[in-house]
Amino acid sequence: MGTDKRSKRGGTSGLDRRDFLKTGALGLAAGAATGCAGTVEVGAFRPPIPGRDTPDIGPNALANAAAVPSGLGAPPAQPFAAPPIDQVRIAYVGVGGMGTAHVRNLVRINGCVITAVCDIREAHAERAADLIEEAGHPRPALYTNGETDYERLCAEEDLDLVYNATPWRWHVPICVAAMENGKHAATEVPAAYTLEGCWELVETAERTNRHCAMMENVNYGRAELLCLNLVRQGLLGEILHAECGYLHDLRGIKFADDGEGLWRRDHSWTRNGNLYPTHGLGPVANCMDINRGDRFASLVSMSSPSRGLQEYAVANYPEGHAKRAETFALGDVNGSLIQTAMGKTIYVAHDTNLPRPYDRINKVQGTRGIFQGYPDRVYIEGRSRGHRWDEAEAYYEEFEHPLWTALREASIGAGHGGMDFMEDYRLIKCLREGLPLDMNVYDAAALSAVCELSEISVANGSAPVEFPDFTRGKWREWGAWPIVGA
Amino acid sequence: MGTDKRSKRGGTSGLDRRDFLKTGALGLAAGAATGCAGTVEVGAFRPPIPGRDTPDIGPNALANAAAVPSGLGAPPAQPFAAPPIDQVRIAYVGVGGMGTAHVRNLVRINGCVITAVCDIREAHAERAADLIEEAGHPRPALYTNGETDYERLCAEEDLDLVYNATPWRWHVPICVAAMENGKHAATEVPAAYTLEGCWELVETAERTNRHCAMMENVNYGRAELLCLNLVRQGLLGEILHAECGYLHDLRGIKFADDGEGLWRRDHSWTRNGNLYPTHGLGPVANCMDINRGDRFASLVSMSSPSRGLQEYAVANYPEGHAKRAETFALGDVNGSLIQTAMGKTIYVAHDTNLPRPYDRINKVQGTRGIFQGYPDRVYIEGRSRGHRWDEAEAYYEEFEHPLWTALREASIGAGHGGMDFMEDYRLIKCLREGLPLDMNVYDAAALSAVCELSEISVANGSAPVEFPDFTRGKWREWGAWPIVGA
Repeated sequence: MGTDKRSKRGGTSGLDRRDFLKTGALGLAAGAATGCAGTVEVGAFRPPIPGRDTPDIGPNALANAAAVPSGLGAPPAQPFAAPPIDQVRIAYVGVGGMGTAHVRNLVRINGCVITAVCDIREAHAERAADLIEEAGHPRPALYTNGETDYERLCAEEDLDLVYNATPWRWHVPICVAAMENGKHAATEVPAAYTLEGCWELVETAERTNRHCAMMENVNYGRAELLCLNLVRQGLLGEILHAECGYLHDLRGIKFADDGEGLWRRDHSWTRNGNLYPTHGLGPVANCMDINRGDRFASLVSMSSPSRGLQEYAVANYPEGHAKRAETFALGDVNGSLIQTAMGKTIYVAHDTNLPRPYDRINKVQGTRGIFQGYPDRVYIEGRSRGHRWDEAEAYYEEFEHPLWTALREASIGAGHGGMDFMEDYRLIKCLREGLPLDMNVYDAAALSAVCELSEISVANGSAPVEFPDFTRGKWREWGAWPIVGA
Repeated sequence: MGTDKRSKRGGTSGLDRRDFLKTGALGLAAGAATGCAGTVEVGAFRPPIPGRDTPDIGPNALANAAAVPSGLGAPPAQPFAAPPIDQVRIAYVGVGGMGTAHVRNLVRINGCVITAVCDIREAHAERAADLIEEAGHPRPALYTNGETDYERLCAEEDLDLVYNATPWRWHVPICVAAMENGKHAATEVPAAYTLEGCWELVETAERTNRHCAMMENVNYGRAELLCLNLVRQGLLGEILHAECGYLHDLRGIKFADDGEGLWRRDHSWTRNGNLYPTHGLGPVANCMDINRGDRFASLVSMSSPSRGLQEYAVANYPEGHAKRAETFALGDVNGSLIQTAMGKTIYVAHDTNLPRPYDRINKVQGTRGIFQGYPDRVYIEGRSRGHRWDEAEAYYEEFEHPLWTALREASIGAGHGGMDFMEDYRLIKCLREGLPLDMNVYDAAALSAVCELSEISVANGSAPVEFPDFTRGKWREWGAWPIVGA
């Protein structure tokens, strides 16, 4: 290509250097439907450590992205549901900022109890234990012996669910350890950030017959569920296009000396793509029935130059400070276009290194109307005045999603305007009633796959890259996520 | 690709069927800098008639898009300026809705006179003549003998400028006829919608030493010029990313029995891409110094399914009506990502077939701040409150563009909020003073090229396609468009 500044992450294949998967059978076979040739052996899905152990995202990755590993079992005929659990026994792994917020939600939800807590910081684990005890539950067992103590927890504790809010690189190993030990898994977003990681979650969930949920809180946002309700009731017509993203100035958080500053910035050293696609894509995927009548089929991605983090370091740290010497691969703004199997289109943005107000775009467009966020507004043909937006506020009286009608009061004070409470509430409810989860392992994989797929496209001059079909065709059969209630 | 619904426009190569260019020398040579191999002969740049004579947009077009025709002259060392013209004698070709608006502007601008008017409808020509006479000018000569009477006009009249607002397919032939007869040319947007058309404008302007301006009125929008002023004064820092587009429900206009309804819908029959990119891209190109320090380098494009026009016809015409039998290739929403030679990124949308309020997005983002439209807002680090938008309104007092400060009052009542008057004012001023035009033939070509390039990318599964460098390297030398005044 003729451009001078495209970032290309070279290096030798990460696949070659990795151990084969323990199951032994997971060589990558050519997916007949995808037209990919040749086979590639899949590694052990070890999380790549940024800057040291990154996957190959070169032309081979481009050609093989959609390949389906061989040796997989079969996806379920209907979205997976497990036997009902009267009292859900939970271990929480990672009780920093986000994990602690989930613990605060869970202790308020009937029918669950946190019996174990794991964190590399003993003080954080103790803080969570105090919250649990204060809520009237027995003090949980604590696991604080380093980064891999979750393995001991998964092996020793009698649990129904292991729910983690850890740094990204631990999501896959913790979920896998949980499922391998007979527990359901739930993880903060993204569930994985490599295609190998996505497949490992799918393979493990299928083989162990366990849930693996990605907890995408934005799926429960009030505006997002209003929009979904409008879609389900047909007011927007056939959905054709959406725009979304995660546009959040994270410079301060990335450079902090605690919390996410300890690990999140690292991903910007070597990765150039959409590092955090699920907040934007989750609600859009629901509106478009992704994995339930349609699927993400292909993607192109493009990144702007990388300036924001370098300039922030220079502006905020004295000469000679180690943070000033860091260099970053991550383009400040990444834009990707996704096409679904039914031809629908999605623009998804990632924009976390520049000064700007928060935004997720949140545009869902159909043949009869359009919803758009920031500010929230609606246009519906025949209902709205010609060519003029209605404020979304005017639609809540008639179209508030039933989950918000039921839980709005209970969720007041919970994280991110209440949506965090609702996602935890729905997780526990589904487990207790033996229902399919709102977000299953195929959703986790499809949404998370955008991380590596966007990196592959960017590294190959914005070439189109195909999504793996994690459902292996079941997306044609599985029914739409219903209007769920409380 | 694995998607089922991508529209592909096949057909044999349009190049083979066309006459060679009259100059004889314009075989396509491989541009060494672009790495394209082989040579292709360029046809006569005849405008393709939708559905009958469309260019090849298949893999050959993908491979050859960036190729530079051989036999061209040299681009000027500095942006082209012509000798000053005291009184600019104008012929106006095409006095429908938009052309008449321009006539109304021009009769109010000192130092120009419309001495000839051309239209296929005599009544429209007479209406324009009345306006000109009422303004105190002599009644212009009228040319109303059919579609090609502009040729006689260009040959016979003594003129400085031929300015046209005709259906898209006539823009190139009219501009070329003007320049070949020693007149400057100005055209409504898009200047061309094929790469051949873009090159023909460039080749003719260079060979004849005449202006060929594309009149992009949005470049003179108040908010757009406020944003440009913020950029020029450095308040947004280094510009890295922009988003823009033309999002306008044109269904009623496309299906009308007069005006643009007579021809605009036709382009949707066979073309699938961004049919109308310049309103969004014009202001962004100025903010990014396109052709003046940077250039559009590559593009990927994706189109949603096509539903809006079909459904509109069914809803608005009785069974058996001819309009119900029409079929359309144009995806309702087209999104393209452009990367510049300096690595900057642009998302540009085209969305004209669905019910929705008007929007152009108009987002320009830099290392120190961001401007965003609809509604207009600004965030500047250190000036705005953390993570909160300022209303753009608050910036006009300090940062109103000098053109608006000078002309705001004079432009009241003119088309599109006054910006149409300013573009006409600037055109005449530059011609009278012998200045380079605000928008020259290279801008016309670069912006208009997005039409066919997006069609090529869509037809090839969103594959990246390279822009021709219409400036042949001069973009590195030409200086930024200044803060111009009245």
